[in-house]
Amino acid sequence: MTILLEENTGTPLYAQIYEHIRREIKEGRIPSYTRLPSTRSLSVSLGVSRSTVQMAYDQLLAEGYLDAEPCRGYYAADMAGVVSFASSENISSIHSIQISSDLRPAEEESGAGAQKKTKDTALLCDFSPAGVDLSCFPYKTWRRLTKEVFSDETGRILGKGQPQGEPGLRLAVRDYLQGARGVACDPDQIVVGAGNEYLLMLLSQILGRTRPVAMEDPTYYQAYRVLTALGHAIRPLPLDGQGICMDELERSGAGLAYVMPSHQYPTGIVMSIARRLELLAWAKKNEAYLIEDDYDSEFRYRGRPIPSLQSVDQSGRVIYLGTFSRAIAPAIRVSFLVLPKDLAARYRSVCGFYACTVPRADQEILTRFLVGGSFERHLNRMRGVYREKMERLTGLLQPLTGSFRMRGGEAGVHILITSRRGMSEEDMLSRAKREGVKVYGLSRHFIRPEAAASGPGTVMAGFASVKNGEMERGAEGLLRAWNFTEF
Amino acid sequence: MTILLEENTGTPLYAQIYEHIRREIKEGRIPSYTRLPSTRSLSVSLGVSRSTVQMAYDQLLAEGYLDAEPCRGYYAADMAGVVSFASSENISSIHSIQISSDLRPAEEESGAGAQKKTKDTALLCDFSPAGVDLSCFPYKTWRRLTKEVFSDETGRILGKGQPQGEPGLRLAVRDYLQGARGVACDPDQIVVGAGNEYLLMLLSQILGRTRPVAMEDPTYYQAYRVLTALGHAIRPLPLDGQGICMDELERSGAGLAYVMPSHQYPTGIVMSIARRLELLAWAKKNEAYLIEDDYDSEFRYRGRPIPSLQSVDQSGRVIYLGTFSRAIAPAIRVSFLVLPKDLAARYRSVCGFYACTVPRADQEILTRFLVGGSFERHLNRMRGVYREKMERLTGLLQPLTGSFRMRGGEAGVHILITSRRGMSEEDMLSRAKREGVKVYGLSRHFIRPEAAASGPGTVMAGFASVKNGEMERGAEGLLRAWNFTEF
Repeated sequence: MTILLEENTGTPLYAQIYEHIRREIKEGRIPSYTRLPSTRSLSVSLGVSRSTVQMAYDQLLAEGYLDAEPCRGYYAADMAGVVSFASSENISSIHSIQISSDLRPAEEESGAGAQKKTKDTALLCDFSPAGVDLSCFPYKTWRRLTKEVFSDETGRILGKGQPQGEPGLRLAVRDYLQGARGVACDPDQIVVGAGNEYLLMLLSQILGRTRPVAMEDPTYYQAYRVLTALGHAIRPLPLDGQGICMDELERSGAGLAYVMPSHQYPTGIVMSIARRLELLAWAKKNEAYLIEDDYDSEFRYRGRPIPSLQSVDQSGRVIYLGTFSRAIAPAIRVSFLVLPKDLAARYRSVCGFYACTVPRADQEILTRFLVGGSFERHLNRMRGVYREKMERLTGLLQPLTGSFRMRGGEAGVHILITSRRGMSEEDMLSRAKREGVKVYGLSRHFIRPEAAASGPGTVMAGFASVKNGEMERGAEGLLRAWNFTEF
Repeated sequence: MTILLEENTGTPLYAQIYEHIRREIKEGRIPSYTRLPSTRSLSVSLGVSRSTVQMAYDQLLAEGYLDAEPCRGYYAADMAGVVSFASSENISSIHSIQISSDLRPAEEESGAGAQKKTKDTALLCDFSPAGVDLSCFPYKTWRRLTKEVFSDETGRILGKGQPQGEPGLRLAVRDYLQGARGVACDPDQIVVGAGNEYLLMLLSQILGRTRPVAMEDPTYYQAYRVLTALGHAIRPLPLDGQGICMDELERSGAGLAYVMPSHQYPTGIVMSIARRLELLAWAKKNEAYLIEDDYDSEFRYRGRPIPSLQSVDQSGRVIYLGTFSRAIAPAIRVSFLVLPKDLAARYRSVCGFYACTVPRADQEILTRFLVGGSFERHLNRMRGVYREKMERLTGLLQPLTGSFRMRGGEAGVHILITSRRGMSEEDMLSRAKREGVKVYGLSRHFIRPEAAASGPGTVMAGFASVKNGEMERGAEGLLRAWNFTEF
């Protein structure tokens, strides 16, 4: 590979390498699945340091232009699923951004490498459950608020502010939660932090590690990873149609249960009111706490809104965990905890010395977004956008319903597709892959390997970041992949 | 108290209450040390919720207008030490912001309440070692970069990016560290995070908690708090003139030592090269790691720059920890680790799933600040500002040198003042307080109470956020307080 590098242009060498390779891949001069030179050989041939090449490759990897295969090297990625934002002349092309961590399916991405590449099929559609549709991001409003904050209050926002988050933001969050989720709390029960993961680190210090943590299985795998990395013993518990199984919970010895009552990830199960009351009674009896991860309550399309578990709790056992990353954009690194009053006091004595991890400027912009009504307008718009996409996808997949069961269409940004006739998950994934369609296996979300292997083949198909033409092509691919014969 | 509250003005009620009380205090209509109504009684008399009043009080507390005394209530604060930024017509009035955590003396603030108020003396000068002089913050540059980032790259910066931090920022940090601190590393050894505290949480997960952590005593107390909260056993070790005592370290069984070799906080000791080599040999022999907290290496006024410990390390035992909060502003919630290569690999396997806690937009602004030369210009300017303040303060305190020893003038933003004639720390503090001058006891930085109680009386006087007239009045106060008679 020859790249013309220019010194003293103001553009760093790594950026020049990145730009060159990106352009070659985008414009098809480096075809998908082509192996790239190693960082070492490219650095020698270009006469630059190896880490300069590595930086360029890292950036290309992060943006999806390259895939890395361990011990084998770097390959040009499937370009069907990648959209460029670097020089986005057109805002509406900024569409799909792959998301890590806070947004549900962080694990999908790292897991995706395990699906072996079929080198002769172009990717028609990536039904990633990890997307956010950023084409509707309120750019203009955000820019205006940013400008306001940086001109009005430069002095004020240079300090670090209050450990729990600024009072104005906590008040706005309280008002939002009260109105939208029935969450009753004072602002001094709210702790703002840079992402769910960080807040779990704080919680771990507040609650200690003496008793195990019960988790729904399958679950939001990223939370499992965090709690494990923090040294907690985990008790994965099965779900029935109403939620986490109480018998198993009773036997678990857990002092904390991590649940998603309003829309369980990834199953979409809504915890019944009976089960909620049982869960609250369990927590009270065992002096245990419940983490209610209410990650996507904003996006429910049918039926009445599901009230939060926190709103039913009479005994101060529920820790409510919410995020703005999913409802606004991954860049909004703001999550929050609502702690029961006794835990809020314990937080202040055990963790009160930690500075807030969210800069005051970012808090101030978000506060104005919330208080000024922009957030409400944005949510309502996104609810409409996602509902329309959900309806379109389920409509397109209608012909599958003889052989497959579809669930999850009432909320969220993905559906579950389960074989009625014995097709395995692996088979579903590989047949789809041969047709150029990427769907995601449910088994990856299980903590217990034996649970992952049981049950009929089930895959997830997400649509938040899927564009119009793509969705049609992807659905047709799935029909071809799975419907060509009877089972 | 009567406050005229207006509904539907767009200004939240808590903000109206805050504004009213702030104005009353600033303009002297509520004199210092006046007790304010309780949140309950004020909420009743105003007909608003108690939490609305609490929010207003919290904001006033955070900004220093109120003091809270446990079980006694809220008092109007000393106004001499408080500067207003809320409606700062004049940028140069944005001067002193009290800082928590990352910047050294977080503990000072919470500790300050312990000094009993002398109700009849106005505060002439607060020699807090926790300040940053924000009158020199490059507002215009920062606003321009913010605007650039939010107009050029809105699409790109909405995603969360790479877990270790964006490649461009890591490259810029590497270049800076290489030039300024002799730190040799690849960008893939750098991990960016929202503050030192968060990075210590990650380190704790990478290193485990099986072996104790050795800390210099006295030390940066906030780091002691964090490590303790994370469940690490701490071995506080004494310092001699060359740094941490090796005999005690050998006996400690520690697997990690937290040191500040270039400018120990709070003592200002520079670790000798002999001690550095002993320390590195100890780490190698015991397969231990060293955290080099290089918190204020930027501000050295005399002598050659002290090279970093990392630059001397041949065996990959040094974890370098740095922050931009002190050199730029507390609002810059960006710290970074430079990990030895084996730990960088372990980080990726143990903690690689954590998303970066710093938003991409903030990373991009900082990158442009670093790469464009603005940071270098800012540092050089601040070095000059702080050196001038240091010289002025030591000059003003010259008459004390018969009875007191002054140390620390060659670097940083505080000096240590030690009695030569047996005056106790407590005595020094209370005499100063009676003259309206606030200085800070060294004993607060000790982990071992017996060590805190030993040694001659020593206090710290910081100057970063002290303004011109204030410094003169404060120094005169100290001369009166301590020099009026012989000991």
